[in-house]
Amino acid sequence: MSLFADEDLTCDAFLGGKLHLWQPRRGRGYRAGVDPVLLAASVPALAGQTVLELGCGAGAAALCLGARVPGLSLTGCELQPAYAELARRNGGGVLEVVEADITDMPLHLRDRQFDHVLANPPYFDRAASIQSHDPGRETALGEATPLRQWVRVAAKRLKPKGHLHFIHRAERLPELLGALPHEMGTIEVLPLAPRPGRLPELILLRARKNGRGAFRLYNSYVMHEGVRHEGDGDSYVPEIKAVLRRGAPLIFPAP
Amino acid sequence: MSLFADEDLTCDAFLGGKLHLWQPRRGRGYRAGVDPVLLAASVPALAGQTVLELGCGAGAAALCLGARVPGLSLTGCELQPAYAELARRNGGGVLEVVEADITDMPLHLRDRQFDHVLANPPYFDRAASIQSHDPGRETALGEATPLRQWVRVAAKRLKPKGHLHFIHRAERLPELLGALPHEMGTIEVLPLAPRPGRLPELILLRARKNGRGAFRLYNSYVMHEGVRHEGDGDSYVPEIKAVLRRGAPLIFPAP
Repeated sequence: MSLFADEDLTCDAFLGGKLHLWQPRRGRGYRAGVDPVLLAASVPALAGQTVLELGCGAGAAALCLGARVPGLSLTGCELQPAYAELARRNGGGVLEVVEADITDMPLHLRDRQFDHVLANPPYFDRAASIQSHDPGRETALGEATPLRQWVRVAAKRLKPKGHLHFIHRAERLPELLGALPHEMGTIEVLPLAPRPGRLPELILLRARKNGRGAFRLYNSYVMHEGVRHEGDGDSYVPEIKAVLRRGAPLIFPAP
Repeated sequence: MSLFADEDLTCDAFLGGKLHLWQPRRGRGYRAGVDPVLLAASVPALAGQTVLELGCGAGAAALCLGARVPGLSLTGCELQPAYAELARRNGGGVLEVVEADITDMPLHLRDRQFDHVLANPPYFDRAASIQSHDPGRETALGEATPLRQWVRVAAKRLKPKGHLHFIHRAERLPELLGALPHEMGTIEVLPLAPRPGRLPELILLRARKNGRGAFRLYNSYVMHEGVRHEGDGDSYVPEIKAVLRRGAPLIFPAP
């Protein structure tokens, strides 16, 4: 697909205005929701560390992370030229953007290993779902590259002791776990439930290369207050509000 | 090991006295805790169905299930002769007990398939933990047969559309999921947390042979009231009390 024309874009505030991202207008392509923001908030990166985002789109997760933690070296890999260009524009020199298929990265990327690799991969296995008419959204949402590959590429690009971070639909947890190569340990899963009493729909998965800790399943993190959405107000619990509106970290529970 | 002498046994009430089981006295062998009772309570078996318990010990899970659901055909497979004998004594003709290694079952068992297969396998991988001095407890708790084998044998012994039910430590979830053969679907995981704010330590895992439903992770079921144990009273939440003291079913949450 060709690049976006300016009239196809909006400039949206993230993290209460700490970050602005150019994205396709509604109906013109894939727009980042809260998921990459939550993913970025969950990464306990430290200044000086290196971070790779697989399938970075317009750069939402990597740039949210960069906005919270100063002094990171951020790299994103994006297949679609139009989104890679947006990520470059949004990154403004802070985000190195490599336009490539994650399964066929250029040598200069395959030669490097990172402290953190994150991904918010396409959520829908198109063998079992309906395609989007928009080719950009389809690539962002439909699973052209199997989830298994995303996990394996992420693990490969990690330094020893480095951390992998994925956000995905809860129903894909068995595949995510099954795809983790043997050298990935200290696996942690934080389920995210939309409201009290609702099943978790998303999970944050973290794992450590050469980690030796036991698998840890946390209790579900409830995102919204109240059993149903009332009015047009924002019903996020205070901790999630702090993540979305102030760029606070999303800290995994203590063991 | 030899069979138990009567003075090594106690007769214990389960399900508020609906069921009595002979078990080794404390310090003389493996005694069933609440785990097999919870496992049995989670099995939605119907009168007329067939049930196999792998590693049935003295028969706690199978007999708790039989006490709740009348008209089941119950079979247990137990490696240790002393426990197989207890299971026969406890079953009183209601539980068919096959003394065998689950990985080397006699042909008359390998020829059959069941509506439900349940297991409360040894919890501790002895490659990474300390053995019990008691050989009976060690066999019940230490993992001589890899967990993977338990899952595969269970799946094999299921009828098409039959259900597998495991209770295990939460930290073994990745291995349990990874061991499920491809034909097992509609996987459901109910984490069990000891108290509010504590991580789930156990999980109930259910899966259906030839099931096509999406994986479902439930929110943690909290077993005890209060953030810590106070006094010597019983602090179970009412639903768990009903399971343990009245033989009520443990129903998985609605989707």
